Amino acid sequence: MRQGRTWVFPQPPAIFATATVGGPREKEGPLGKVLDRAYEDPYVGEKTFERAERALLESAVAIALRKGSLAPENVDLFVGGDLLNQIVSTAYTARSLGVPYLGLYSACATSTGGLALAALLVASGAAATVLTGAVSHNLAAERQFRQPTEYGGQKPPTAQTTVTGAGVAVVRPSGLPVRIRAATVGRVVDMGITDPMNMGAAMAPAAVDTLRTHLADLGLSPADYDLIVTGDLGEVGRRLLLDLMRETGLSFDPERVRDAGLMIYDRERQNVLAGGSGAASSAIVYYGYLVPEMADGRLRRVLLLATGALHSPLSVQQGESIPGIAHAVTLERE
Amino acid sequence: MRQGRTWVFPQPPAIFATATVGGPREKEGPLGKVLDRAYEDPYVGEKTFERAERALLESAVAIALRKGSLAPENVDLFVGGDLLNQIVSTAYTARSLGVPYLGLYSACATSTGGLALAALLVASGAAATVLTGAVSHNLAAERQFRQPTEYGGQKPPTAQTTVTGAGVAVVRPSGLPVRIRAATVGRVVDMGITDPMNMGAAMAPAAVDTLRTHLADLGLSPADYDLIVTGDLGEVGRRLLLDLMRETGLSFDPERVRDAGLMIYDRERQNVLAGGSGAASSAIVYYGYLVPEMADGRLRRVLLLATGALHSPLSVQQGESIPGIAHAVTLERE
Repeated sequence: MRQGRTWVFPQPPAIFATATVGGPREKEGPLGKVLDRAYEDPYVGEKTFERAERALLESAVAIALRKGSLAPENVDLFVGGDLLNQIVSTAYTARSLGVPYLGLYSACATSTGGLALAALLVASGAAATVLTGAVSHNLAAERQFRQPTEYGGQKPPTAQTTVTGAGVAVVRPSGLPVRIRAATVGRVVDMGITDPMNMGAAMAPAAVDTLRTHLADLGLSPADYDLIVTGDLGEVGRRLLLDLMRETGLSFDPERVRDAGLMIYDRERQNVLAGGSGAASSAIVYYGYLVPEMADGRLRRVLLLATGALHSPLSVQQGESIPGIAHAVTLERE
Repeated sequence: MRQGRTWVFPQPPAIFATATVGGPREKEGPLGKVLDRAYEDPYVGEKTFERAERALLESAVAIALRKGSLAPENVDLFVGGDLLNQIVSTAYTARSLGVPYLGLYSACATSTGGLALAALLVASGAAATVLTGAVSHNLAAERQFRQPTEYGGQKPPTAQTTVTGAGVAVVRPSGLPVRIRAATVGRVVDMGITDPMNMGAAMAPAAVDTLRTHLADLGLSPADYDLIVTGDLGEVGRRLLLDLMRETGLSFDPERVRDAGLMIYDRERQNVLAGGSGAASSAIVYYGYLVPEMADGRLRRVLLLATGALHSPLSVQQGESIPGIAHAVTLERE
């Protein structure tokens, strides 16, 4: 099962079903058409943004189960998380589902943290059907991590735009012709960035650390992947990532190193500053776009490399720098 | 590996080393003598309570590694969590350790959530050495979840006292003669309690739900365990637990159903209201007291049943009830 720090699954579990939902900005973006459902109302019919966030996750879960012809009682375990304090969106979704639940907090790296764990659970026989996912809501995240948007504070161009939406996947021993071949759980890497308006820079070194480990463990190079897709580095973090990859001697085609936060929005057309961020950024792009592309045979091997910033508003106020983390998952077309 | 919803490990991983640390109130309590280190200073030499909380976890980790003659690089994975927003205490501890890290949020059920996952990782061969643990700090938790203690707000007798301390365990294929035989990940159970000053009542139904599942999956009864030890139900929650166990037809000896929150403090002598709570309550009692008792042969089979309340202060302010969860882990003397 192990090669170095990387889990390699001899019988790779499959993605069985996926679902993604988003808000108006995500619908208008280049991947708007892949969303299973787009909500025009930022409240998603609820009274608060926090309840709206939960409704997004519940909606994505319901769609994924329906697409997989599964009832909640067919789900052995739900592993996932969100950005809100005490990951309440996921906890309340687990309550409505009524299935065993293990809450994860890897910030915006939750998509691949959850997918890695889901694959391990299925590959080890500990579970046959695992549901995993992540959710974020722009307005709930803004008021928790920064300022309410009504405050109208200006942002620097390094700041990113939290994605409103959710992406979930069901993992089983077989399913779509898209298999989870390997996974590398990341280390915390902190280069001393203290600006929460520049999280891409805080997370890029963690992405490189996990990428190098993953490739070395498997004896692969970037060229072995059709795409390497980070989660939400944005424009600033992606540039730094490419620089760091070059510095560490990796040879690669920059066109095949992409970032979900830059795929989900059109920075020319949409006012999203350095690009998308949030736990849903990678979840939507991975499950809504890349998995179908692979299922249709247009991509054969993709490295999902979601990145997270593990600070809290309070830890930054107390002068701490922002620790980054990245978890890698390799998807292969059967 | 699976029996119903319960993971049963054919080659049960072992507890390899443990460590616990606490504050002054924990030192004065009945289990004060089992602490590897007790800090008189609530700041643990740091500038803030939040940094103190992190220092407690870092201290426990360092002691456990020393007791196991392990260096951080011997640790394949660190899985754990705390109660602070974005589980920063654990994230910053993972930063200083520099090992692969998967953050968990199960509130006060993190001890058994992490231990269950650690056992699965080792049993499946995904890791050979897993570090798991949980931390809480009374004064950091108070000001995040309730009011700063300087505010001097009165509390009802149903309220509990958050434990200051940390408990960690290293899990490996072999070690102490204490094996992790089985684990059941819990479901979220919510009976509509909305009073965060009565969390024992919010969590007790989840404990019964997981207990019944665990026993049914394994064909066991409470009498098959020397002890069943919940994490932090306190006096109110424990009474409710016993009532619910009776209602569901379980036959048991109440003397063998104990609560870590009532073991860590002496309610007669210490002003702790309904008893201890917090992620460290169960972690300290399980790793500092029960594991050594088992290693010494005084207990042969114990069910760890840590309980968590998954609300956030904001979710309660928005009128939500408190979802409870409990994860069960069976420890057996070799």
